[in-house]
Amino acid sequence: MTAAPITFYYEFSSPYAYIASERIEEMAARHRRPLVWKPFLLGAIFKQTGAGPLTQIPLKADYSKRDIERTARLHDVPFTWPPRFPFLSVAAARIVYWAGEARAPDLTHAFFRAAFARGEDLHRSETVLAVAEAAGLDPAAAEAATRDPAIKARLADETDAAIQAGVCGAPFFIVDGEPFWGCDRMEMLDRWLETGGW
Amino acid sequence: MTAAPITFYYEFSSPYAYIASERIEEMAARHRRPLVWKPFLLGAIFKQTGAGPLTQIPLKADYSKRDIERTARLHDVPFTWPPRFPFLSVAAARIVYWAGEARAPDLTHAFFRAAFARGEDLHRSETVLAVAEAAGLDPAAAEAATRDPAIKARLADETDAAIQAGVCGAPFFIVDGEPFWGCDRMEMLDRWLETGGW
Repeated sequence: MTAAPITFYYEFSSPYAYIASERIEEMAARHRRPLVWKPFLLGAIFKQTGAGPLTQIPLKADYSKRDIERTARLHDVPFTWPPRFPFLSVAAARIVYWAGEARAPDLTHAFFRAAFARGEDLHRSETVLAVAEAAGLDPAAAEAATRDPAIKARLADETDAAIQAGVCGAPFFIVDGEPFWGCDRMEMLDRWLETGGW
Repeated sequence: MTAAPITFYYEFSSPYAYIASERIEEMAARHRRPLVWKPFLLGAIFKQTGAGPLTQIPLKADYSKRDIERTARLHDVPFTWPPRFPFLSVAAARIVYWAGEARAPDLTHAFFRAAFARGEDLHRSETVLAVAEAAGLDPAAAEAATRDPAIKARLADETDAAIQAGVCGAPFFIVDGEPFWGCDRMEMLDRWLETGGW
C-alpha cells in the first residue's frame, strides 16, 4: 500500500513557494510520502481574495522583502530577486503540465532556480524556453505547448481544482485532507506528518 | 546594563495575537529580555494595506479558522470563538494604556482570555468593564478613561507609532531593530534571540 501523497501547490512567481520547493522533497522522503506537484496561477486566487503580491502592498512590502530574504538565509537556500517581480508564470506552468508528472520535480526546480537563484527574467518567453531546453526539452515543442489550447485548459482546470480544494495562497500543501498554507507552515506540516495530527 | 526589550504589538481582536500573548513571556524570560506591551488598533493598518479580518476573506476564511484552532491546540492554549468576531477592541486597549505599564501584562491576559478562552463579548463595554473590575480596576474610573480625550489620543498615537515602526499586522514583534510579523514567526524570533541573527 502506498502512503497518501503530499500535494504541493505552487506559483512560479512566489519566492516563498521557491523556498518551499527546495525543502519539501527532503520532508516528504523522511515521512515516506509521495509528492504531487501542482503549479497553478496565484492571480486567479488574488481575484477572489482581493489580495495581491505582498511586495506591492503598503506597509507589507518592506517587511515581506526582508522576511523572504531572511527565510531563504535561514534554510540555506540561495536567493536573489529576479529583474521583474512579480512575473507572469503562465508559460512555465504550462510547460510543466505538458512535460508530464515524471518531469515535474526537475522542471519545477529548473524554473524556480532560474528565477530566484540566478535572477533570470521568466516574464520573457525566451528565458522560459532556454530554461526548458537546458532541462532537456525541445524548445520548439515547448513553445508550441504554451499556445496549445488543451494545455492552456489544463492549467486553468488545475487552478480551478486548487481553488476547489481550498488553496488560498502559495505555497500550499494538502496531506490526508489537512491544508497548510505558507512556507512558514512547513514545520507544522512536518509535525503533522510525524504525529498524525492533533 | 539591561538587555534591549522585545516590543510586542497586538490587537485584542486578533486570535493569533492572543495565542502569542500566551507564549511570549516564557520566550522573553528565557532570553532575559524585557517585554514592552503595545496594544494598537489593527483597523488603522487594514486601512493602509487594504486587508481585513482573515475570517471575512473569501477562500481564506475557512482555512484561517481551522489554522487558528489548530495553532491553539498545538501550543496548548485554550481557545474558543467569541460571540462577535472581529470585535471592537478600542475600550480594552485604552484601559491598558490608562492603567499603565506595570499593569499591562495582567490586563492584557485578562482581556484576551475573556475573549478567546471564555468566549466573552468584548464588543460590549459592560463586558470590558467587568473584566477590568475583576482585574482590580475601579470600573467607573475605567469607564471614564475610555472616554478621556488624552487616553483616546494616546491609543491613536501608539497606533501611529506602530505603523511608523513598520508594524503591518498582529501580532508583531520588534527586537534589536528586527521585525517579526505573526504568531508563526515566533520560532524564528526565538532562534534570532538565541543566535543574534543570520
